[in-house]
Amino acid sequence: MNDLFVYTLRLGDDALIAAQRTAEWIAAAPQLEEDVALGNIGLDQLGQARSLLQYAGQVEGEGRSEDDLAYFRDERDFLNLQLCELPNDDFAHAMARLLYFAAYQQLLYEELLSCADETLSGVAGKAVKEVAYHVDHATQWVLRLGDGTEESHRRMQAGLDALWPYTAEMFESDDLVRRLPVAVDPSTLHDEWDRRVLAVVDESTCTRPEASYQHSGGRTGRHTEHLGYLLAELQHVARSHPEATW
Amino acid sequence: MNDLFVYTLRLGDDALIAAQRTAEWIAAAPQLEEDVALGNIGLDQLGQARSLLQYAGQVEGEGRSEDDLAYFRDERDFLNLQLCELPNDDFAHAMARLLYFAAYQQLLYEELLSCADETLSGVAGKAVKEVAYHVDHATQWVLRLGDGTEESHRRMQAGLDALWPYTAEMFESDDLVRRLPVAVDPSTLHDEWDRRVLAVVDESTCTRPEASYQHSGGRTGRHTEHLGYLLAELQHVARSHPEATW
Repeated sequence: MNDLFVYTLRLGDDALIAAQRTAEWIAAAPQLEEDVALGNIGLDQLGQARSLLQYAGQVEGEGRSEDDLAYFRDERDFLNLQLCELPNDDFAHAMARLLYFAAYQQLLYEELLSCADETLSGVAGKAVKEVAYHVDHATQWVLRLGDGTEESHRRMQAGLDALWPYTAEMFESDDLVRRLPVAVDPSTLHDEWDRRVLAVVDESTCTRPEASYQHSGGRTGRHTEHLGYLLAELQHVARSHPEATW
Repeated sequence: MNDLFVYTLRLGDDALIAAQRTAEWIAAAPQLEEDVALGNIGLDQLGQARSLLQYAGQVEGEGRSEDDLAYFRDERDFLNLQLCELPNDDFAHAMARLLYFAAYQQLLYEELLSCADETLSGVAGKAVKEVAYHVDHATQWVLRLGDGTEESHRRMQAGLDALWPYTAEMFESDDLVRRLPVAVDPSTLHDEWDRRVLAVVDESTCTRPEASYQHSGGRTGRHTEHLGYLLAELQHVARSHPEATW
């Protein structure tokens, strides 16, 4: 497969699967204000997914639209990070994930701004402002919960700890990112990500998470049990009417 | 109870319950573009709900916030139209509802623009632009589905017919709207609503819906069986942690 197609698909799938998990909160956030904020964040992610998957379809050159790529691929064809597909669990977990993921996206999009591919740099130009807000939003919640009540601190710590073993995957390098000129090698982002995220963790009075084992596999289509359920919901309507004009 | 409180609550509950049903599509619309469009529409409705419920709490003067009103009232205390709480069923039903409801909201907010209550006229000023887009979006789908394939026409007709018996409730007058100076008597909106909506139905090549019976009761807290399930989902997180700071 075309390297640029695969690379764009990775970024697009991250955004699509993240958007799906964020959207689950719209019906269920603990405050109406937060419903609105998470709704907007989910729509930002979905907008990124649309642009990236549309471009992936163009690059592939086999006539697949962004809808074809979102709705008619199977689990093993999705290349998103496992971090994005994990269930929301509680609100603290969701904010830990948003901090980890948005901080990664921010560094990535900042690098892509200057890449030679005009479409990717264009997507990055719009997205970089969006994810700065996501990082800010997640940061505020991690601080508020971590430095809040005993119960909120306990939950925030649990969220940070539970998702930490899924963070190393974001920074894995492979042959594809090394040989594709426009790709950002994510291993170059790790130190700065660590610095930014751990500064938030420290300020929140939580303990820095540690992990003896790091999960991996999303970039080659190996996923947790949770992605299948997520895709079932995402793809149900489109697949029930594959020939429909609507 | 204070008339203005009850009146504002009616409008706010309509928007809140409609937002909840719209948000259900974000995970399940048939196209990514439509996911984004419905996401934005749901957020518009949620924004209207927040403003209206916040104001209702102020008017009541018992210290209840918009979150208290959204999350800690029981089913019989909700004053929304039954039309808003009905399940989405299929996409054609959802677009029929959006056409019916947004066309009603548009006429209502246009009248509220000039009411003597500055908060209500302010909410209406922002909302009137939003609902114009909602009407336009629903109109496009009703035309596209009604004048589409045999199957899409059949579904569109079924959606228009199924929800028609819930439309008369929008225009019911009662003592409250007649005696509250800032309220719009919704019975005055009926003719223009009929004219606008039936023009869309005619152009879609669907048959004008008819109903031998019209449902009613939402404005006095009598609801269909569906509202309880909707509230269970909406209120679950907030009620599980009533004392939480988040």
